[in-house]
Amino acid sequence: MSIAKTLGERIAAFTSADVPDEALRWARIGIIDTIGVTLAGSAEPCARIARTVAAPSNGAALVVGTRERMKPSDAALVNGTAAHALDFDDCSNTLGGHPSAPILPALFALAEEGHASGRRLVTAYVAGFEAQARIAHAVNFHHYDKGWHPTATLGVFGACAASAHLLELDAAHTATALSIAASFASGIKANFGTMTKPLHVGHASRNGLIATLLAREGFSAGDETFEHRQGFFNVYNGVGHYDAEAALTHWADPLDIVEPGIAIKQYPCCGSTHPAIDAMLMLVGEYGLKPDDVESVVSWTHPRRLQHTNRPQPASALDAKFSVQYCVARALAQGRVVLSDFEGDAYADPAIRALMSKIVAEPDPLADQQADHFGAEVVVQLSDGRRASKRVARAAGRTSANPLPDARIEAKFLDCANHVLTPDASRDALGMLWRIDGIEDINTLTGLLEAGLRH
Amino acid sequence: MSIAKTLGERIAAFTSADVPDEALRWARIGIIDTIGVTLAGSAEPCARIARTVAAPSNGAALVVGTRERMKPSDAALVNGTAAHALDFDDCSNTLGGHPSAPILPALFALAEEGHASGRRLVTAYVAGFEAQARIAHAVNFHHYDKGWHPTATLGVFGACAASAHLLELDAAHTATALSIAASFASGIKANFGTMTKPLHVGHASRNGLIATLLAREGFSAGDETFEHRQGFFNVYNGVGHYDAEAALTHWADPLDIVEPGIAIKQYPCCGSTHPAIDAMLMLVGEYGLKPDDVESVVSWTHPRRLQHTNRPQPASALDAKFSVQYCVARALAQGRVVLSDFEGDAYADPAIRALMSKIVAEPDPLADQQADHFGAEVVVQLSDGRRASKRVARAAGRTSANPLPDARIEAKFLDCANHVLTPDASRDALGMLWRIDGIEDINTLTGLLEAGLRH
Repeated sequence: MSIAKTLGERIAAFTSADVPDEALRWARIGIIDTIGVTLAGSAEPCARIARTVAAPSNGAALVVGTRERMKPSDAALVNGTAAHALDFDDCSNTLGGHPSAPILPALFALAEEGHASGRRLVTAYVAGFEAQARIAHAVNFHHYDKGWHPTATLGVFGACAASAHLLELDAAHTATALSIAASFASGIKANFGTMTKPLHVGHASRNGLIATLLAREGFSAGDETFEHRQGFFNVYNGVGHYDAEAALTHWADPLDIVEPGIAIKQYPCCGSTHPAIDAMLMLVGEYGLKPDDVESVVSWTHPRRLQHTNRPQPASALDAKFSVQYCVARALAQGRVVLSDFEGDAYADPAIRALMSKIVAEPDPLADQQADHFGAEVVVQLSDGRRASKRVARAAGRTSANPLPDARIEAKFLDCANHVLTPDASRDALGMLWRIDGIEDINTLTGLLEAGLRH
Repeated sequence: MSIAKTLGERIAAFTSADVPDEALRWARIGIIDTIGVTLAGSAEPCARIARTVAAPSNGAALVVGTRERMKPSDAALVNGTAAHALDFDDCSNTLGGHPSAPILPALFALAEEGHASGRRLVTAYVAGFEAQARIAHAVNFHHYDKGWHPTATLGVFGACAASAHLLELDAAHTATALSIAASFASGIKANFGTMTKPLHVGHASRNGLIATLLAREGFSAGDETFEHRQGFFNVYNGVGHYDAEAALTHWADPLDIVEPGIAIKQYPCCGSTHPAIDAMLMLVGEYGLKPDDVESVVSWTHPRRLQHTNRPQPASALDAKFSVQYCVARALAQGRVVLSDFEGDAYADPAIRALMSKIVAEPDPLADQQADHFGAEVVVQLSDGRRASKRVARAAGRTSANPLPDARIEAKFLDCANHVLTPDASRDALGMLWRIDGIEDINTLTGLLEAGLRH
């Protein structure tokens, strides 16, 4: 039996009974995180332009962050672009990319149109996430290294599988949908650093959804679309650069959303600055530090990662996202690092600049003794003569073995949501999202996102 | 300067003065042929399903073969799928595919919305065709052999360049549009032989158009998107498997639409049967042959092409398209081979079956002496004892050096158009298409296609 057919059978057979509590918890977190970053991303130029180009469109699916409703495929394009606009959405080591941003915009759009329950949406999300991860196992990391953008080229399968599950396609139709999706996969890294990167994600979300709708209507596609001589594996990865078997082994054993799980980005800036921010926030918490208490700071980052984060004088908001000096200063000054730190001319704030003059970034002198390059150490010389330091091996939230506390997940969501929702609506939405699997009609949730807009 | 920028400059600088008479003539032929096959293809299941999935959509662009109007991107998806539904649309040796089907649906949709003139549409078509051909020169035929479907993966650039020209984007915006399109290219041969093959073309047409609309609205994309380490050439073809320079040399020198030009398929069946049909039609014309005059026929086809066309008992309409015996019998019985010969149960027609029993297909015994494998010979033993034979080196219309007579182009168009238009409307449309570069508003033409529907 072909890979598409086997995956089709597994997706179609997947039920809510196959979602253990641990997976349900991670699904809730993935949804909270994705809705949060989509709300914040909805105001970004890439999302606004995608919305303009998708219009006119009429349908049941909310364009998040607006009162506009579009047909599901158009909403998936716009919301998928918004979800990745800030590059602040969840990550997956299996994918080498962002697992939820391509899946959830398609799912929400179809669930709104079909008045599906939260439970159905969650089950479809976990099934789509798993299918996407299995295909990733077959092609990574050659696929990633070669220049494909896996969030898009593999995300299209996640969006497709999840959509097929939500629409209750049978195994054969699901297999056909995956085969159509194999002809839709696209997105190259040459467009990284531009608006086209988040666009890839919206494009994948829309196309996975469209593949599913076509299959439902009786469209035909190849059978051995993955393993065919001129199929997805050979054409995208090249002969000898994939492991077809890996697509079929370990299905849901364990579920990829549980192990290795999803990584939540805590701060809206370059991941290489995160362990230093973590270390500084711990010192702030432990010593009750305030800027005036501090005489000087040394921030040690692994040399491999200091290369692109040693920016003592960031010249733009984007530049500030890659400045470990700026990020550590913000952590010290505020006890948190949030979206508004990277908006407008916040990067030039004189008080922060004054603080940055006390901060020196250096390559970690103990780098050779570390297991990997994900750690950092921050050493603070206090005005009272004391010296405090904190070493972090890995930023919190980057693996499911080192999860973010709920309070941090909630703080991130509220920071994001408050960009477009009233504070009350943000809190209400957060409460409802923690209980999403109990919602009878997903429109209850999206109705709240619409009604709670600040403007 | 990057390849995208250079192409952007050339596309933006291209004017109707750069379209010589010979190119204008070929552009008219390409448009006549594409509109014809789109009309005929509009009733195919793949086009009908694409229409269902694209709905609801409201806009100025006609879904050819219907009275429905959609927004341009949706119309491009549906009309592009219809244009390739019968695999009867024009061909390009440069592309290794079908050059006009991805370009024209996007162009017509935008031209209708913008009330553009026929002259502007023709100029944009020739510019888009040229850009598409230049990129093809850089990647073919490794690109083709590897398993990409060039009509889609290169067609997206043709649709994009033509759209950018019609919308009068400047050089920089056109370059950005091409760079976005590089992240949209998709379509693999594992889906050949299914509805997903024509879908690739609609997908490419829509996406080329969307890339252009995004660029027009200020979207950003990479610069060196073709030649980047993780750009289109390396990611799609692989290091060492392309010639980047070839994308920039010989721009419009000569225009690809003139030399090597476009090939027109004469008959709605496998190209490997075409030279034998040509030979039989010549004999019918020369000798006034009727089935009763014929005692036996031997049809010689190059062995490489007889492999898939030696089908003495075709069991379906699709099978009949690959049966040289069936096709030669139809040519003898009717003096032409038309769409209806491959519809319903025409393949089982008893009179044709009786005639087929007199026809033997054999590998060409002179194959070794031929320059290539495109020829055929038909030998007819007449009841009156005479023997007549005709050898054809290459079916008519396959190169611009061996063009189809206008009468054949018109007969093909009318056969196609009559499927959905009244005979009067088909003739009127044909007349208007020959003068398309004189139409002030392209809606005059598409209005006729809409008003002339039989049902």
